[in-house]
Amino acid sequence: MNVLIVYAHPEPQSLNGSLKNLAVETLRSLGHEVKISDLYAMRWKAMADAGDFSDRAYPDRLRYAGESKHAYLGGSQSADVAAEQEKLLWADAVIFQFPLWWFSAPAILKGWVERVYAYGFAYGVGPHKGERWGDRYGEGNLLGRRAMLSITIGGREPHYSDRGVNGALDDVLWPIQHGTLFYPGMAVLPPFTVYQADRLTPEGWEKAADAFRERLSRLFIDEPIPFRRQNGGHYDGQQVLKDGLGAGASGSRIHLLQAGEPAERPVGEIATTERRAV
Amino acid sequence: MNVLIVYAHPEPQSLNGSLKNLAVETLRSLGHEVKISDLYAMRWKAMADAGDFSDRAYPDRLRYAGESKHAYLGGSQSADVAAEQEKLLWADAVIFQFPLWWFSAPAILKGWVERVYAYGFAYGVGPHKGERWGDRYGEGNLLGRRAMLSITIGGREPHYSDRGVNGALDDVLWPIQHGTLFYPGMAVLPPFTVYQADRLTPEGWEKAADAFRERLSRLFIDEPIPFRRQNGGHYDGQQVLKDGLGAGASGSRIHLLQAGEPAERPVGEIATTERRAV
Repeated sequence: MNVLIVYAHPEPQSLNGSLKNLAVETLRSLGHEVKISDLYAMRWKAMADAGDFSDRAYPDRLRYAGESKHAYLGGSQSADVAAEQEKLLWADAVIFQFPLWWFSAPAILKGWVERVYAYGFAYGVGPHKGERWGDRYGEGNLLGRRAMLSITIGGREPHYSDRGVNGALDDVLWPIQHGTLFYPGMAVLPPFTVYQADRLTPEGWEKAADAFRERLSRLFIDEPIPFRRQNGGHYDGQQVLKDGLGAGASGSRIHLLQAGEPAERPVGEIATTERRAV
Repeated sequence: MNVLIVYAHPEPQSLNGSLKNLAVETLRSLGHEVKISDLYAMRWKAMADAGDFSDRAYPDRLRYAGESKHAYLGGSQSADVAAEQEKLLWADAVIFQFPLWWFSAPAILKGWVERVYAYGFAYGVGPHKGERWGDRYGEGNLLGRRAMLSITIGGREPHYSDRGVNGALDDVLWPIQHGTLFYPGMAVLPPFTVYQADRLTPEGWEKAADAFRERLSRLFIDEPIPFRRQNGGHYDGQQVLKDGLGAGASGSRIHLLQAGEPAERPVGEIATTERRAV
């Protein structure tokens, strides 16, 4: 299988760098093809601005989404953006390796999302009609791929437990896991995490490395987080979860499928984007 | 009062640009002093890397937090970072004006947080002992200031309602409002929002402008979101919310004070950072 690693850390000798190297070595030894986007080494342009568009549809005023659509459809995207989209389409799985800074992805990685996730590529895909609001959240151009976050965290695990002061980890990661990975169609595996990352001992590294190898060996086996497909019949015409669903959960977890609920009833036309699931 | 506006949009003629201009005009007409950090115009360096440190404590390997602490305490931070910290300390209120891109702040604004929120300035403040885990979440160097997000959103309001497919807005904003604004001590006002921002009609603009003026006129009056102070006796020694608290809520809302709960019992030493509340 093809695995893309999107890696964001400025220091090759960091824990993130070591995890990235371990992932490359492990995945290749398992027979996978691996590509890496080392954002800091690439000096990835994180700022989304007019410099992204050589052929403007609206010269007077920058409307980023409109220019993004024009460039994507017209083939005038900047080369670095198009190259990353090709890698995503090549990949069967995408691993994001980064430190959790201020409870979200590093700016350089956010900037990768903002420039690579073009209109027509990652959003603005598929018809909007009634209960079907585009091909997203379980549909989209990246359908059939799996994604996993591998994150290093300075804080302690209890601080991110269900009642921990930082907020439950899956709530902290919601904008990324649901809003950025599941949105264009990827199946999202539970995150791999290393807590107290700044204080890792040699023994701690060995444990983390073993655990990471185990997760990597199961990359195409483990069950993804059971997010509800937007167009699976769960949400109404206002994209609000229908009454009676999610009764056993609260907060963001209402958006996960639960035992005992009716089977999915896909709405609207068949998703325009199909690909065999891996 | 002193108000800092941190503004992140590449196009002056954008809705964000117009809201920013309206805020400046309105606040000044109310007699406030206003400073603006226009991140795109400043070509703010969003990447946190070795280039931020002219005087390295650890030359062999970049440990960003360690260098941040060394530079902050030793006075060798880069000039742009120090200038932003001065603005934050000067401010009585901070307004963040930005488009919600992929459910979080634009990369350039994330990069402002990552570089300006130095160790010793925004985190790593105060003693860590037992139930007191530093001066954060309602304590810290920015105590006494108010913060408010003013965000433009492409999607529709129901999509961000309690059961909306994107997740409830306050859950989407949790990493920012709780994890980034409340963390160093600011009181966080409910966000000002403009939905369907790409489709705003002239009438829609007038309504939004009126609503924004109203929020701005109440900037120092409105009640902040009642986040629990970490060191207010609500959390145990593992920073986990104590049993019996938050019973009327779920998800991230357990971290908001509720009627009927015992009064705060501050723990540990008096917070080392004090300032009159505004």
